[in-house]
Amino acid sequence: MWMDTKAEEKEASRSRASLGQRVLSGLLFFTGDMEHLNKYMQDKVFGLLLAVWGLRGVSRVILANNPLSGALILAALCWASPWQALLGTLGVLTSTVTAVIMVQDGAEVSGGLHGFNGMLVSMLMGVFSSAGDWYWWLLLPAYLGSATCVFLYSGLAPLLDRWDLPVSVFPFNIVIVLYLLCTGPYNPYFPHHLATPAGPMEINATELMAVEVLRGIPLGVGQIFACGALGPSLLILGAVLLYSPLLAAHALLGSAVGTLAGLSMAVHHEFLYSGLSGFNGALGCMAVGGLFFTFNWRTHLYAIASAFLSAYADIALSNLLGTVGLPACSWASTMIGTLMLLLTGSLSTYRIPMGQVMSPEHNLRSRKQWKAGKTAEGESTDV
Amino acid sequence: MWMDTKAEEKEASRSRASLGQRVLSGLLFFTGDMEHLNKYMQDKVFGLLLAVWGLRGVSRVILANNPLSGALILAALCWASPWQALLGTLGVLTSTVTAVIMVQDGAEVSGGLHGFNGMLVSMLMGVFSSAGDWYWWLLLPAYLGSATCVFLYSGLAPLLDRWDLPVSVFPFNIVIVLYLLCTGPYNPYFPHHLATPAGPMEINATELMAVEVLRGIPLGVGQIFACGALGPSLLILGAVLLYSPLLAAHALLGSAVGTLAGLSMAVHHEFLYSGLSGFNGALGCMAVGGLFFTFNWRTHLYAIASAFLSAYADIALSNLLGTVGLPACSWASTMIGTLMLLLTGSLSTYRIPMGQVMSPEHNLRSRKQWKAGKTAEGESTDV
Amino acid sequence: MWMDTKAEEKEASRSRASLGQRVLSGLLFFTGDMEHLNKYMQDKVFGLLLAVWGLRGVSRVILANNPLSGALILAALCWASPWQALLGTLGVLTSTVTAVIMVQDGAEVSGGLHGFNGMLVSMLMGVFSSAGDWYWWLLLPAYLGSATCVFLYSGLAPLLDRWDLPVSVFPFNIVIVLYLLCTGPYNPYFPHHLATPAGPMEINATELMAVEVLRGIPLGVGQIFACGALGPSLLILGAVLLYSPLLAAHALLGSAVGTLAGLSMAVHHEFLYSGLSGFNGALGCMAVGGLFFTFNWRTHLYAIASAFLSAYADIALSNLLGTVGLPACSWASTMIGTLMLLLTGSLSTYRIPMGQVMSPEHNLRSRKQWKAGKTAEGESTDV
Repeated sequence: MWMDTKAEEKEASRSRASLGQRVLSGLLFFTGDMEHLNKYMQDKVFGLLLAVWGLRGVSRVILANNPLSGALILAALCWASPWQALLGTLGVLTSTVTAVIMVQDGAEVSGGLHGFNGMLVSMLMGVFSSAGDWYWWLLLPAYLGSATCVFLYSGLAPLLDRWDLPVSVFPFNIVIVLYLLCTGPYNPYFPHHLATPAGPMEINATELMAVEVLRGIPLGVGQIFACGALGPSLLILGAVLLYSPLLAAHALLGSAVGTLAGLSMAVHHEFLYSGLSGFNGALGCMAVGGLFFTFNWRTHLYAIASAFLSAYADIALSNLLGTVGLPACSWASTMIGTLMLLLTGSLSTYRIPMGQVMSPEHNLRSRKQWKAGKTAEGESTDV
Repeated sequence: MWMDTKAEEKEASRSRASLGQRVLSGLLFFTGDMEHLNKYMQDKVFGLLLAVWGLRGVSRVILANNPLSGALILAALCWASPWQALLGTLGVLTSTVTAVIMVQDGAEVSGGLHGFNGMLVSMLMGVFSSAGDWYWWLLLPAYLGSATCVFLYSGLAPLLDRWDLPVSVFPFNIVIVLYLLCTGPYNPYFPHHLATPAGPMEINATELMAVEVLRGIPLGVGQIFACGALGPSLLILGAVLLYSPLLAAHALLGSAVGTLAGLSMAVHHEFLYSGLSGFNGALGCMAVGGLFFTFNWRTHLYAIASAFLSAYADIALSNLLGTVGLPACSWASTMIGTLMLLLTGSLSTYRIPMGQVMSPEHNLRSRKQWKAGKTAEGESTDV
Repeated sequence: MWMDTKAEEKEASRSRASLGQRVLSGLLFFTGDMEHLNKYMQDKVFGLLLAVWGLRGVSRVILANNPLSGALILAALCWASPWQALLGTLGVLTSTVTAVIMVQDGAEVSGGLHGFNGMLVSMLMGVFSSAGDWYWWLLLPAYLGSATCVFLYSGLAPLLDRWDLPVSVFPFNIVIVLYLLCTGPYNPYFPHHLATPAGPMEINATELMAVEVLRGIPLGVGQIFACGALGPSLLILGAVLLYSPLLAAHALLGSAVGTLAGLSMAVHHEFLYSGLSGFNGALGCMAVGGLFFTFNWRTHLYAIASAFLSAYADIALSNLLGTVGLPACSWASTMIGTLMLLLTGSLSTYRIPMGQVMSPEHNLRSRKQWKAGKTAEGESTDV
């Protein structure tokens, strides 16, 4: 095990590692944050570095931080739509390179923190464009929009840092809304679809199909990347599973909660079937359940609450922004996630400082070790 | 007198208290913040504690902090509409219990600070519902909405605390707007009325009735609890009078200023008659005139300015939000009140730190004592 | 040279100043921030002080700080429309006097920081009024609106000060939007035009006239004062030139960038011809290029980026606010300018602390002297 060699050494001294353990070690090598990769990366060429930073950026969209997950996700996007995968790749590379040019913090760049907003902006421009795939002119706004994300990330960071909050996808949400407002539906160069509000369903709507609704739950995970096909969505879920099984479980749980919220508000059937009602719940659930807070049954309950709040807020914002033809993007989950990080009281005692956030499993292990250490010293650490 | 026993002891040593003074002492026992009550409450059962916390929460809506005022207000609401009173009671209890479960700060919970937002959300859901009274399904969103207020209160507190600002009714305003957006007017389970903007009056409007406009001034105080009947409104005003005569005077003054602002902008007659044009002015006037600032003629002028600003901002927001069928709630007075607390210059010298805010009369007395003490020490305290 | 007498003395000791240098010295006396004026102002009557503060306030609108520039701009406004000039004068005086009454910081008042928001509010009320010129009732809201700006300035300052940000024209933007919302288009006392969104041009639009578009570039500088005539706009540009040639160059550059952005989004022709597409770009470009950052080729590139971002954000906001008939005012450049000040990375190393911001030429000179001093001490100051 590369991740905590000391612990392994101790164990090895007591008993010889069986073959099964060796295979597991090999597998574990590729899971989690893959921090050991950074050691090998020091003297590599810029192209290779950029690729790894970009792949980390791709996985950051879904709150993971693992280049292999990023590669799997990119493969899934390519499977769903090569044009979208191209736009996404352009976006993540553009914003990462822009961050390098603007001399942003090195650790942030190499952690992929400057890539994921650009990727989302670029891909969503493609999704809302009504000019069809392979409309090459779209690369121009995709390029500029991705670069703008770095400005917003860099400017919002000092604001949010006062409360130790992450910038998360605020830049993406701002840039895509401004782009859609700027071009408008009848723009001669960059026309786009109007978003339809989640709204209440029509009076004479057809009956709800349970199978389709259930199918919407994994699709909700895919919709985080604006991907509405089942196969690629499952591959994306697999990529999250590679990073952290706990995160993947919360993604599915959150999507299910979001679908439930959508049902209770009688949203359009299409909204449920496509997974659009689930993805904000999934993001809200993942952020609280394990990532920014140590996992336990209390944070698990908060994660479910966060999923419900995100899903209902998404329906509300979708109805509001839909009146001017705008999509609600991931405003709801971003704001609810930020709110949960600000909460005082019982939840805040489990909060992990922003600089130490890693994969849920790693967070859990380091907290256990820290607690064990404290207990060994004979001091109570209960708050 | 329980409130400043030392001062009383001195007085008693000089002259025997007359019977009149004894009766006054008895009456004063029930006014102001009733801090002495906390002494008796230490070993009581949870049910009784919750009742007192809840009643404090009810009075907090109108910037008071007195369980008796709360009981009077609850009686007034019951008189106006038992269904509304039930919803309000559910709201205040739900959010207080949620705050206890979420391990919020004990002093905040026992001061009723976690109750008033939930009460308002719950009651406003009833007001805007178009399903009529005693629609029992409404208890579900009322319950969830009240609980959500605790999340928002707890999350906004660290943000606003940096500038020593109160959270006030921001959670209520956010939750009710999200709820109305989420359900929309045609929701099959929770339909609601669309709010009409204050807008300019129609061309062929009937003549304005002066009596009705004057009647709108006390109604403006009742509208803080979404109550549009004269009797209950006067009882609510009486409850404020019990807490603090100064606050009650500013409530009426602010409502009158709001009505004046409404007249100057030619709003719909209905807006004036119902007291809707007055309640934001009343809240804005109360916040500045005595509660968060020591009362004197300068803060009195600022209170009037605050009432005007709140009332005009309310008309503006009502026109803006009315275009998508949303009510302006108390956004205007909340934001103007927050602005006044941030003001630098002459007003800020009279500001009372948030932790020491009590009834205006108490604030006035403690400032006088503090000033007297300073003068006795031979130091000038003029700023 | 009054501005750095020490440097001049040295030079004079080496060689006698030629006649040309003497004339130049005389001219330079009236350029830049005219700080030497403050020495003469100490014992003057209030009327004269107020006039100088007011004229500084007038020039502050366009990011200058020079009473002579202010006088030139006022002359230009009088040339374009005496009624507008009257409203502007009323606004700047009202808000400055209000700031004195509210005991705001003396340095802020004498620097004209409390005047420019009031001036803009007052003038824009005149521009949007549909009651025609010399409608004397308009003085009432103009007076109240200008006074309100002081409340907002004073309240926003502590919020923004945490990040060393200027309040800039946030108060103006808030007050004018609230005023327009409050009165609405059909108000019997204060009717106003609805703003038209920048929107995409009509299908059967006439061909674009290149001369008119080029004419829109200097008009973009005038539009900062809501002035749409060429002569006065050039005079305003001259006033900026008097304060700082670098700032004037960036104003023109920013306006050109804004026009380019407008062309790329195919906005209405009228939007380009009138200079409305340019003025946000001009403000965004001026803020970054020399004023808040030391001028060099890097900040110059950032200034161009800021101009593009401001112009595109303005089109987006204009389309959004246009749906409810509101103008986008200078929201875009104000927010983008604030964002640029928050940026971390390479730009932030050139940032001038808010308390030391003076004319770009002065900033450049003091940085050079500071660098020279550092180098003389044998220390590297490269970051």
